Amino acid sequence: MNQQPNPDTNLHADDSLALHTDKYQINMTQSYWQDGIHERRAIFEVYFRKIPFHHGYAVFAGLERVVRYLQQFRFTESDLSYLKEDGYSDEFLKYLSGIRFTGTVKSMREGELAFANEPLMRIEAPLAEAQLIETAVLNIVNYQTLIATKASRMKQVTGNDVTMEFGSRRAQEMDAAIWGTRAAYIGGFDATSNVRAGKLFGIPTAGTHAHAMVQAYRDEYTAFCKYAESHRDCVFLVDTYDTLKSGVPNAIKAAKAYGDRITFKGIRLDSGDLAYLSKEARKMLDDAGFPQARIYASNDLDEQTIMSLKAQGAQIDVWGVGTKLITAYDQPALGAVYKLISIENETGDMVDTIKISSNPEKITTPGRKRVYRIINRNNGKSEGDYIALEHEEPQKEERLKMFHPVHTYIAKFVTGFEARELHHLVFDSGELVYELPDLKDIRAFARDNLQVLWEEYQRILNPAEYPVNLSQACWDNKMRLIDEIQRDIQRQLQP
Amino acid sequence: MNQQPNPDTNLHADDSLALHTDKYQINMTQSYWQDGIHERRAIFEVYFRKIPFHHGYAVFAGLERVVRYLQQFRFTESDLSYLKEDGYSDEFLKYLSGIRFTGTVKSMREGELAFANEPLMRIEAPLAEAQLIETAVLNIVNYQTLIATKASRMKQVTGNDVTMEFGSRRAQEMDAAIWGTRAAYIGGFDATSNVRAGKLFGIPTAGTHAHAMVQAYRDEYTAFCKYAESHRDCVFLVDTYDTLKSGVPNAIKAAKAYGDRITFKGIRLDSGDLAYLSKEARKMLDDAGFPQARIYASNDLDEQTIMSLKAQGAQIDVWGVGTKLITAYDQPALGAVYKLISIENETGDMVDTIKISSNPEKITTPGRKRVYRIINRNNGKSEGDYIALEHEEPQKEERLKMFHPVHTYIAKFVTGFEARELHHLVFDSGELVYELPDLKDIRAFARDNLQVLWEEYQRILNPAEYPVNLSQACWDNKMRLIDEIQRDIQRQLQP
Repeated sequence: MNQQPNPDTNLHADDSLALHTDKYQINMTQSYWQDGIHERRAIFEVYFRKIPFHHGYAVFAGLERVVRYLQQFRFTESDLSYLKEDGYSDEFLKYLSGIRFTGTVKSMREGELAFANEPLMRIEAPLAEAQLIETAVLNIVNYQTLIATKASRMKQVTGNDVTMEFGSRRAQEMDAAIWGTRAAYIGGFDATSNVRAGKLFGIPTAGTHAHAMVQAYRDEYTAFCKYAESHRDCVFLVDTYDTLKSGVPNAIKAAKAYGDRITFKGIRLDSGDLAYLSKEARKMLDDAGFPQARIYASNDLDEQTIMSLKAQGAQIDVWGVGTKLITAYDQPALGAVYKLISIENETGDMVDTIKISSNPEKITTPGRKRVYRIINRNNGKSEGDYIALEHEEPQKEERLKMFHPVHTYIAKFVTGFEARELHHLVFDSGELVYELPDLKDIRAFARDNLQVLWEEYQRILNPAEYPVNLSQACWDNKMRLIDEIQRDIQRQLQP
Repeated sequence: MNQQPNPDTNLHADDSLALHTDKYQINMTQSYWQDGIHERRAIFEVYFRKIPFHHGYAVFAGLERVVRYLQQFRFTESDLSYLKEDGYSDEFLKYLSGIRFTGTVKSMREGELAFANEPLMRIEAPLAEAQLIETAVLNIVNYQTLIATKASRMKQVTGNDVTMEFGSRRAQEMDAAIWGTRAAYIGGFDATSNVRAGKLFGIPTAGTHAHAMVQAYRDEYTAFCKYAESHRDCVFLVDTYDTLKSGVPNAIKAAKAYGDRITFKGIRLDSGDLAYLSKEARKMLDDAGFPQARIYASNDLDEQTIMSLKAQGAQIDVWGVGTKLITAYDQPALGAVYKLISIENETGDMVDTIKISSNPEKITTPGRKRVYRIINRNNGKSEGDYIALEHEEPQKEERLKMFHPVHTYIAKFVTGFEARELHHLVFDSGELVYELPDLKDIRAFARDNLQVLWEEYQRILNPAEYPVNLSQACWDNKMRLIDEIQRDIQRQLQP
């Protein structure tokens, strides 16, 4: 280990994310460069094959971080000297040192509803650049989209209740804690416990005290009073010893003792049976004259538990969700991929490409495409998404045929629709041309988007499958390429 | 949002991790400071309650990052100005601005085998400092220990086969990708695809080419040749179109064409039935005169799948593991906690504290303690771990009574043992006194530690439960405190 990390959080003074890539990206780049095809235009798409959590939709997030990453993309001195030690040639490193991102990016906006097998982003760039950025782009988009989706799913259950992100200590390292919180906010969460996320992103922060404070003062009443001495807003944690026998009575006693000097916002339950305890605590608070005091609950909550607690009439007003949100516990990876769909040939024409697999859902859909949301003008609801080749103009069609991408004989015809394009131009030949929205606006956008979705796609158990269809031209192009490749293979293997 | 993240990867020029904490830590600190108890000595322990993945042991990791974090701990200007906007008083912020970590830390070494309910780390510091660092310490230790454990578990199955970490694109954001790789290396993985992890930590990196390169050249043979033109070591990815009909034959053809000009290290399978394909590919490679060419496999592998593939005689030499390792897919959070076990009172004496719960395993074990591994001198194997109060000297006992911490009537007596203390002094009153080992040494240490464990604890399905026992004095102290707190509660609630 010849390069010790320096003691910064940053590890190297000039640490960059250019090396935050899989080694094969660099090795392929070397081959392209040596062969002289590194500057050919290549088009890659980012998409996932399955919506996580058996949910009915996903919420796209991560674009802002991708933008920052692409703007900053360059190999620094310490990057290059590491690669030199690893055996790459000076000439190749000289080439790498000059690389900047000069591509064109179209992308869904953060907060957009996304579905399986439709492009979230489309990157058109010189082959080498497009290849080098794959790993980081997926790393960013996969995680933020996963968590924004999980958060939106949880908000389907908590509804208008205040819902807070409490997962920092269980997050998968520090970036996950802060970017996960940002994604949760996009998905509809209201606040976070992570102060750094508050600082970096302007997300509201929340939190009062922990068990340790009660233990430090030994008895609850003293601890609550000390907290009240030093803070206007008070939420007392009542389960350090015994929630109903000791915690709640002491909280009430402290609230009475401090009267108007504090705002007694409520109590927090963090263990035990939350349905039973919240109902009992509610009665005690009401009887004591604190009907406005709210009950906060936390302790390994997820959407299933919350739904079940609500079904039992739990008297919980504010939900604190940690581990199950920030790690997307029941499905901790999204699995979006980055696939080459078209590339410039030696004569300067774009040629579509395909990846074939014995696994039909792993076959890619070739060609430069656009994605539309087909909104019914009568009711404002979406009929599904529609993927067409670049030159097609579905918005000009009177009667749009939408057919199932697997069971192609299932089709419907839509009239009186608006075809709303989901991609926006973000980078134009390396130049940022997109104004990054304020985070609060992204969150509002995500919330408003749900209005175009019929309820059947928003149900958290067994939602209906939202249609994502290919245009006839797109489908035909795919079939043509499969056929061509298969004939190529046959031909190649003839002796 | 009044503080826009700047376009750095770092977000703020003076971004620090001091705010990487839960807000309640800051609010409690404010109460302690206002009450004047912020400098009282407090002792917290880090431990988890359950070994993840139903595994028989965990592998502790994360200490180096905790050390860097504590060394750098301070509130920067942007931190303080954010807190000011959030309403904290100038006087309190002035106090925060001067805080450095001045505590004493004892910890297991990275790579140590760890079990449930024993302290991984012990932090003794002024109350405010100890409180402020909790969230980040847990964030770090939870994730790295989780992944080191998962990696060690996977290595139990891959044995001496080369095993590589390929998970960057599915990791939960960037920190997880690099720190997870580091933890995987500690747990026994041999290499990573993440180049930045190679640069930062000196971990060997690996990777050749992806499907995109085959697609870029359209046919496999051309792509393999282009790769061979520019790299000495070649592993060809053979599943872009059809593994056995096209991929493997083209790999063989390229290997023959390039002969001695390359080292044909093998082929990689990334889809399809890996057992069947590897056996067929093995025959084809052998028949073509490449018995030394190895078969690399990847595609959503985990320890169960690998075990099953091996049981079927799959001819796989090198394993690439991504998502299932880097996210600890089947249990993506460890859940270590940080609990106050003793605190200085107003007269300067240390007083033990406890957290009680209706959930017996959530009751903490009070008091300043040490952890020993009891090694049988006859066979070098461990009899279990033994937690004793600070002043006890189990190494001087002839006959050690070890009893079950729940079913206390189950006991055994051990003689002829060595009591090996597991904690090492890391910080002494804020000064780093521990030499951080080289990562390769940590990895070797983790591997060697397994030799003290009987095989029954290393089995990946239904391992035996490794004994972690309390000393009699430690047990009695816990019972005394439970009793005292319960009497306090009774007394307090008398009218």
